[in-house]
Amino acid sequence: MKEFELIELLTRSLPANDSVVLGAGDDCAVLDLGLREDFVLLKTDAVVEGVHFTSATEREKIGHKALGRCLSDIAAMGGTPSAAVITVGLPSGYNAEEINSIYDGLRKLATRYNVAIVGGETTQAPSGLFLSVAVIGRVSKSRCIRRAGAKAGDAIFVTGELGGSLGGRHLEFEPRVEQGRWLAEHFAIHAMIDISDGLAGDLRHLLRAGDVGAELFTRSIPISRAAKLQAKTESSAKPPLLAALTDGEDFELLFTLPSASAVPLLDAWKQQFPAIKLSCIGKITKGQGLKLRDAQGLRDFSGTGYEHFSKKPVS
Amino acid sequence: MKEFELIELLTRSLPANDSVVLGAGDDCAVLDLGLREDFVLLKTDAVVEGVHFTSATEREKIGHKALGRCLSDIAAMGGTPSAAVITVGLPSGYNAEEINSIYDGLRKLATRYNVAIVGGETTQAPSGLFLSVAVIGRVSKSRCIRRAGAKAGDAIFVTGELGGSLGGRHLEFEPRVEQGRWLAEHFAIHAMIDISDGLAGDLRHLLRAGDVGAELFTRSIPISRAAKLQAKTESSAKPPLLAALTDGEDFELLFTLPSASAVPLLDAWKQQFPAIKLSCIGKITKGQGLKLRDAQGLRDFSGTGYEHFSKKPVS
Repeated sequence: MKEFELIELLTRSLPANDSVVLGAGDDCAVLDLGLREDFVLLKTDAVVEGVHFTSATEREKIGHKALGRCLSDIAAMGGTPSAAVITVGLPSGYNAEEINSIYDGLRKLATRYNVAIVGGETTQAPSGLFLSVAVIGRVSKSRCIRRAGAKAGDAIFVTGELGGSLGGRHLEFEPRVEQGRWLAEHFAIHAMIDISDGLAGDLRHLLRAGDVGAELFTRSIPISRAAKLQAKTESSAKPPLLAALTDGEDFELLFTLPSASAVPLLDAWKQQFPAIKLSCIGKITKGQGLKLRDAQGLRDFSGTGYEHFSKKPVS
Repeated sequence: MKEFELIELLTRSLPANDSVVLGAGDDCAVLDLGLREDFVLLKTDAVVEGVHFTSATEREKIGHKALGRCLSDIAAMGGTPSAAVITVGLPSGYNAEEINSIYDGLRKLATRYNVAIVGGETTQAPSGLFLSVAVIGRVSKSRCIRRAGAKAGDAIFVTGELGGSLGGRHLEFEPRVEQGRWLAEHFAIHAMIDISDGLAGDLRHLLRAGDVGAELFTRSIPISRAAKLQAKTESSAKPPLLAALTDGEDFELLFTLPSASAVPLLDAWKQQFPAIKLSCIGKITKGQGLKLRDAQGLRDFSGTGYEHFSKKPVS
């Protein structure tokens, strides 16, 4: 991970210009190109064979995942995606049907969210398939939600259920585009991020950006059926709560808002999105760091913490 | 090439929406996001180890090439680049200094053209380095130059010198951003493209888009010193004219405009860009296809035509 920390360092000294509202470091870049009411959002992301999928993965799901990841980032700003460009790195030996299936996954998801696909480059990739997607979107200037902004006392919410995504959901998830936009339009969301690194890891991004801490109620964290099943059937699986905290690739929305809005939000959400779970999982605190509260009391949750944590399963 | 033809077919049925002025098939996608005077341009492109560079290539030049290719496409629309996002696929074993060098190449080129780098994702790439770059830019609605638009009688121009780029220039070329914008601002350019596939290949893209033909004057085609040197010193090298016609990766601008503007253009260009060659290399014709005119007369130049052509070197 040292190299990735280095990249983070490198990206801090990147060239900027007058159009940049927010550069590297949030879910999307935010640009002011002169539109009266909107900022422009820009995001790129790639999926690579052997990392994000295998050579056996259904081709259509590779296309779905590649575009879905970017749409999830647009959603996390409260934005609306407009257009995507795709670069496909193609090893020799892929046949027409397989390539068409990858594009099926791209096309279906794009159509569902009225995203135009406006460029489709291909290049040779001698040693394995990759798809790199860039998405441009828009967000109202007054409703652009960043990672920074969480305040002590805020309630912390998460959509959907967490953990066990590698069992299948990471290839089939529905990006929360409608939900992100609806949240930004109807509630004073203070900070938002999509969960790709895992609840604990991405919550820490919010905490660092806002210079605050958090306390999570372990019983309120929504654990997916997949994580529970994996814990039962696979001897090497994480305890379900740990899976929900650290598995990642959930592509759910994690956000904070004033605690007074928590109940109105839950009520309105049930009307608007009855099929999608929404959970209040904790609160933002003045201190730094991430703590867990369960029946035994309050304790620190450090790092990705798997080694430490797995010895004291709490659920 | 069958797979790439397939991709071309696939991309014709891509989802569109109201924002799309021009989708896949030109140098950049053109979007109308509601700006009064400008369209937004979007382009993505990737460079892959073993295809666009080798494991021995200087790291800084890899960064330069990756961004330069996209800037060249923005230039070919007459546009101005605004911001870029970069995905780096990183094999294990790359050290901090190497990564910093790649970013040096990106940073220096971006700074030179006032391009903000607003996102720097990294992902593992088990089998080889790749960089995928997406660039967003702007172009005046009245001066957005497409591939389509060449008219019979137009003069055909090309910037710089062609051929032999793989000897080194493909890693060091200067994208013609200033030149593309200046051309679009000062002359009624009918059609423009940047040369990546080679003069003959990219001219054919213009011809197909405009449903016209072309006649090139072989003596006017500017052949690079590198192509001439390669022909002298490497027994397997192409004849220089063939290299200029088919080598590719020149990243020069190829464009057409009314023949009455040819002399005024050459005069103004010499004032504006005294260090950069500009050559009138032929004319657009009513018929279809690409013909070459030399001392022996007029003849077809078919396909990439290497096998056929190499048996009758014309220079």
